[in-house]
Amino acid sequence: MLEQLKEIVFKANLALPKHGLVTFTWGNVSGIDREKGLVVIKPSGVEYFEMRSRDMVVVDLDGNVIEGDLKPSSDTATHLVLYKAFPTIGGIVHTHSTVATSWAQSGKSLPAFGTTHADYFYGEIPCTREMTEAEINGAYEHETGNVIVETFESLKLDPMQVPGVLVHSHAPFIWGKDPHNAVHNAVVLEEIAKMGLHTLALNPQTPPMDQHLLDRHFLRKHGANAYYGQK
Amino acid sequence: MLEQLKEIVFKANLALPKHGLVTFTWGNVSGIDREKGLVVIKPSGVEYFEMRSRDMVVVDLDGNVIEGDLKPSSDTATHLVLYKAFPTIGGIVHTHSTVATSWAQSGKSLPAFGTTHADYFYGEIPCTREMTEAEINGAYEHETGNVIVETFESLKLDPMQVPGVLVHSHAPFIWGKDPHNAVHNAVVLEEIAKMGLHTLALNPQTPPMDQHLLDRHFLRKHGANAYYGQK
Amino acid sequence: MLEQLKEIVFKANLALPKHGLVTFTWGNVSGIDREKGLVVIKPSGVEYFEMRSRDMVVVDLDGNVIEGDLKPSSDTATHLVLYKAFPTIGGIVHTHSTVATSWAQSGKSLPAFGTTHADYFYGEIPCTREMTEAEINGAYEHETGNVIVETFESLKLDPMQVPGVLVHSHAPFIWGKDPHNAVHNAVVLEEIAKMGLHTLALNPQTPPMDQHLLDRHFLRKHGANAYYGQK
Amino acid sequence: MLEQLKEIVFKANLALPKHGLVTFTWGNVSGIDREKGLVVIKPSGVEYFEMRSRDMVVVDLDGNVIEGDLKPSSDTATHLVLYKAFPTIGGIVHTHSTVATSWAQSGKSLPAFGTTHADYFYGEIPCTREMTEAEINGAYEHETGNVIVETFESLKLDPMQVPGVLVHSHAPFIWGKDPHNAVHNAVVLEEIAKMGLHTLALNPQTPPMDQHLLDRHFLRKHGANAYYGQK
Repeated sequence: MLEQLKEIVFKANLALPKHGLVTFTWGNVSGIDREKGLVVIKPSGVEYFEMRSRDMVVVDLDGNVIEGDLKPSSDTATHLVLYKAFPTIGGIVHTHSTVATSWAQSGKSLPAFGTTHADYFYGEIPCTREMTEAEINGAYEHETGNVIVETFESLKLDPMQVPGVLVHSHAPFIWGKDPHNAVHNAVVLEEIAKMGLHTLALNPQTPPMDQHLLDRHFLRKHGANAYYGQK
Repeated sequence: MLEQLKEIVFKANLALPKHGLVTFTWGNVSGIDREKGLVVIKPSGVEYFEMRSRDMVVVDLDGNVIEGDLKPSSDTATHLVLYKAFPTIGGIVHTHSTVATSWAQSGKSLPAFGTTHADYFYGEIPCTREMTEAEINGAYEHETGNVIVETFESLKLDPMQVPGVLVHSHAPFIWGKDPHNAVHNAVVLEEIAKMGLHTLALNPQTPPMDQHLLDRHFLRKHGANAYYGQK
Repeated sequence: MLEQLKEIVFKANLALPKHGLVTFTWGNVSGIDREKGLVVIKPSGVEYFEMRSRDMVVVDLDGNVIEGDLKPSSDTATHLVLYKAFPTIGGIVHTHSTVATSWAQSGKSLPAFGTTHADYFYGEIPCTREMTEAEINGAYEHETGNVIVETFESLKLDPMQVPGVLVHSHAPFIWGKDPHNAVHNAVVLEEIAKMGLHTLALNPQTPPMDQHLLDRHFLRKHGANAYYGQK
Repeated sequence: MLEQLKEIVFKANLALPKHGLVTFTWGNVSGIDREKGLVVIKPSGVEYFEMRSRDMVVVDLDGNVIEGDLKPSSDTATHLVLYKAFPTIGGIVHTHSTVATSWAQSGKSLPAFGTTHADYFYGEIPCTREMTEAEINGAYEHETGNVIVETFESLKLDPMQVPGVLVHSHAPFIWGKDPHNAVHNAVVLEEIAKMGLHTLALNPQTPPMDQHLLDRHFLRKHGANAYYGQK
């Protein structure tokens, strides 16, 4: 069942340690089959080096395990909220990558300081508000998804134009059109988080980049008139 | 004698350079057999790449060498004080890992800024007070253990809930239920020390994380109602 | 056609990931045959690990593709402006290397703080002005070249003495007498960008280095009386 | 001639890139045969990966090449001044390692902030004064040695107790009882330079460590009553 998606999600999970984004088991990738309404996700707390494609867990959008001998990632409920609220996304990544997590801990959104950012994220990557006591003590992982969705709704952001978020005092969630693309965006986020850290160290008053330059770079790679790459 | 524990302690010592926690011979791991009251520890100043399992030294809780041709780590007396004061711990690590050591040098405790920290350490990781002239010139390594124990007693900390400490002007000691778990916690400490450094660079006024979020994450992985991983 | 230059440019492109200067496909190297007036450049958006020597694209100085099945780098127009304006250069590199890009984002020129810088760059590495709306929305990559040339003309800089620039809110362009030398200078730029970041962190008031020391080091390696190396 | 020392110096040079201390050819190691009054040093500007043991150059203490087909390092005159002024040292290293060089560029001495430093360097590692125009335009490399010696004499430092220096606006020179030991100290310097950078970022008012603790750690590893390691 969903053998191809399981293989894709498995490989996307292995890409996290390869790109230096995870320590131990601190990260997970999922992918969705929109037609079947099923999500494939990493099992909880399993080491990357001993994980196999068939260990991937299949759940439905209500979180019921449909296939798999292992428990799904403890962050599964967050992924499901995002898949339901953002119908255009096909893959989600959660990591505690060092510098993106530091931004999340500082409670600051990551401004668009340059074209590296603009090539992938159409503007500031928001940091959510802090979660309430009720949210934390309730269905915590589900509420984590809700606070992300609330952030995107209140800022009127298109999740395919800003494919990631910093969860306050926690770490980033990143997504894309498929699991591979989500991992790609997670690598970019960590890189621009580093650049942003150094940029502010060099000039604490650095303003966000020019809006026209942001438009130009984002649209050079995305949308109808993209002209980067071989397509 | 204690062949299995020697093998475990040997492998845990080799994990230190593998995880990038040590330069040259600046680190050591020990493990305890609580029934026999014996501790196995790395020999002093021996290079990791030439060390063998049978080079591990067995000492009793008074520091007498029970087995082994080599001198035990010069930090052995510190380990022994901790094993005696903290009866629930089974392994101890000492490193000079770069960023955790920088926190120790700055004399600042490492606040819990986010869930990466909360998943392993239930609150701030304390920095000890400076040692006195008498302590430094007396049984120095023994007194290093005493100042750690004093720190935990005065702050009423459970060493299994906060499995590490920063020794002022020196470096961290980290522990766990066994040597492998202690090394795991040492890797976490270095990672959250980096995140804390960057977090304060981004926002020098970052407060500690919400107490409810700290509770939720620590208890998600520890204690009776843990639900992370496959158990 | 230009088989030797294609091989050189191909290898110079592969040197970028080897030196840790690029993430994904964020970088490109070109080389020029001055006699023929033809430029060889990396194809757009192709992964380094799957690129072959014969994938290099040959363009003339007006940007017409003379040979090659793939589209040339989207930054080709910038390279061509530089080759036309700077007749002494033989190779150009563009990267988004982490710390040099952070300087570009901060809008600050990189001062000559020490002899590592002076051995390769004869003074401050300038950051361009911001581009105008008209430049951004016009022939953007061509205008990027123009703003670099304007910077060098207004500062009366010799591009062989200062073989690189920081493009505001973007990233560095670096050049040299040939593609290999340009990559060499790109590695140096990232290294001195790191040193400059740390130098200002240690002492925000650090002045540029002594002019006599700058002269001595640059001229020790360059010009008629060079005495570094085996020549 | 001096085949054994050439092999030692060759291997010590290769240890520099292995420990991440050099970019390209930016570093060199020498060793001295005190009885013969001859120094073996790396040739100038030769890549580490293509260097052979027999490429090492033998010079006398006046800088005359006694054996070798290649030109000795352009820093040879600095090494010779140090060997003549510091009769107890047996090997010298020069690198532009990233963070130690950043300290040199900032013009600040590296304070002893903790026991990692104290285990190898008995107090602050001094930064020299800036060189004068006459020194820079005269026998520059010779004068670089002189300013180092002047620094140690004016501060009444024993070069075996403080086996390194930061040359203002330049980079570190490090030494030891032999070439291998000098490389070891160069690795330590880069590591404590990193720790010092982070320590000041965390607490800009961090004072130097307690003098008794400095004494204890330095003397634990050095001098008549050393008790670290297996000897």
